Amino acid sequence: MNASRRKSTGLSSKDPRLAQVTKSFQKQGVMKLLGGRISRLSHGVVEITAPNRPAFSQQDGFVHAGIMATLADNAAGYATLSTLSPGSRVLAVEFKLNFMRPAVGDVLRGRGRVRRLGRTLSLCEVEVEAKQNGKWISCAWGSETVYCIKEKRD
Amino acid sequence: MNASRRKSTGLSSKDPRLAQVTKSFQKQGVMKLLGGRISRLSHGVVEITAPNRPAFSQQDGFVHAGIMATLADNAAGYATLSTLSPGSRVLAVEFKLNFMRPAVGDVLRGRGRVRRLGRTLSLCEVEVEAKQNGKWISCAWGSETVYCIKEKRD
Amino acid sequence: MNASRRKSTGLSSKDPRLAQVTKSFQKQGVMKLLGGRISRLSHGVVEITAPNRPAFSQQDGFVHAGIMATLADNAAGYATLSTLSPGSRVLAVEFKLNFMRPAVGDVLRGRGRVRRLGRTLSLCEVEVEAKQNGKWISCAWGSETVYCIKEKRD
Amino acid sequence: MNASRRKSTGLSSKDPRLAQVTKSFQKQGVMKLLGGRISRLSHGVVEITAPNRPAFSQQDGFVHAGIMATLADNAAGYATLSTLSPGSRVLAVEFKLNFMRPAVGDVLRGRGRVRRLGRTLSLCEVEVEAKQNGKWISCAWGSETVYCIKEKRD
Repeated sequence: MNASRRKSTGLSSKDPRLAQVTKSFQKQGVMKLLGGRISRLSHGVVEITAPNRPAFSQQDGFVHAGIMATLADNAAGYATLSTLSPGSRVLAVEFKLNFMRPAVGDVLRGRGRVRRLGRTLSLCEVEVEAKQNGKWISCAWGSETVYCIKEKRD
Repeated sequence: MNASRRKSTGLSSKDPRLAQVTKSFQKQGVMKLLGGRISRLSHGVVEITAPNRPAFSQQDGFVHAGIMATLADNAAGYATLSTLSPGSRVLAVEFKLNFMRPAVGDVLRGRGRVRRLGRTLSLCEVEVEAKQNGKWISCAWGSETVYCIKEKRD
Repeated sequence: MNASRRKSTGLSSKDPRLAQVTKSFQKQGVMKLLGGRISRLSHGVVEITAPNRPAFSQQDGFVHAGIMATLADNAAGYATLSTLSPGSRVLAVEFKLNFMRPAVGDVLRGRGRVRRLGRTLSLCEVEVEAKQNGKWISCAWGSETVYCIKEKRD
Repeated sequence: MNASRRKSTGLSSKDPRLAQVTKSFQKQGVMKLLGGRISRLSHGVVEITAPNRPAFSQQDGFVHAGIMATLADNAAGYATLSTLSPGSRVLAVEFKLNFMRPAVGDVLRGRGRVRRLGRTLSLCEVEVEAKQNGKWISCAWGSETVYCIKEKRD
């Protein structure tokens, strides 16, 4: 992967907890498939943005629920990883999404926010928004439980 | 779309409730993106199968939770549609998935099964399996609530 | 039921949408069993408070998850009802709770907040807190989908 | 607690994994409040039964969703505990219930069944039924994730 390609995965940071998020993100085949990039990267909150396209559509032309789920899940996992010692790993335990409106628009954005970080589990709030006519509209909202395999230094 | 391409979306049926599933499936951009096809089509139970590929991977090489969610959600929606009068429509209200094992393997399969069909809402059980060494392994399990916009004839 | 008993169910209001909440609450056997009362009553946000007692305990002395679920579910239903025309009814479709900490303390409080009110369904955020040493600690958080049978005037 | 009172909590067993379930159940204040007893006790499947009564009702006379949640959650926790070494403990991580029908009837029954037992987490399927005119009707269905604090011998 060349430099320009690597850059396209979005924000990076010198903070090692945040840097590991960018590094991990670059390894995901699915984010290349969807054209996702990290658009917000902070301790406990991560956003992933992808341009909408016809390849994301369900039968009525709206964004498929699974695409929204993919952005939300990914954001939750990385929101959790951003709070852990470098070398840690995260795995989804479960997630739950409620769909509030059919999603249409130019750009999609999934956000994960850590609400509670325990010894082994992290509980995240997730939300998916679509940009319509320059305005972000909330389309899906829910939660995810993430399993943390913490690097010992933590 | 030519005949061979249409065929590639999977099973079809002359039963009008089942036929509408195949027809709707063909309109989904996301199923072309994932290479999904209908591998089981009956009243109240639908399976969607897709060959696994690196483009579905998360950071550790396993199938991304969002890909599993997409297959599960789609199967639940069509399991519901398969029970409704032709001309009806379905929308995801919410879904919940628990991830039981990291998914690896050659082929992925999402199954939706209607457990309760009400006047407006359908409750489906969903499961995602991965085929490893010729054996189907259950990787994710959960539920989905589907909103039914029923064609009047129903 | 005499006046003092009725008063014990908590806040009341002259606003007919809020007044129907208090009226409905008084009919619930389960709130008498738990000693719950309405401690916040506004359009789209309702809180229900109950003194903690040994009869709520699970095996380790913490508040049982089901008691927290009861307060959360009830608050979500009434948060929804508080936004509907008088004469409307509400039914739980599904709820999901994550337990963040073992709940101990003197008083318990469940809160429901409407995040999205649609034609038929309401999506609520729910939270349960326990008062420990004069401070409210969040112990559970989640969501509930409520089915609305709206009075025609709406 | 005398013998007759102890008996009233339901089934017991000489198998130490099952015996610990009965012992733990006896410590729960909430089961005394609801009149619950263990009506099925096996490795990985536990049922808890309680006679229905007006004190369980919501505003329309149906069984309150929170009462069903309490039975379901308790059954899931004990289904998990029944598979663990004596001395282990269980805590609810999250649960999700879908309500399929208003619950009425003479007796209520919550069932938990372990679908996947991992190193730290157990995933259970839960169901709540009500006995109406001698027939068990399924009223709620869902899942629960349980955290296992395993005794070392395991």
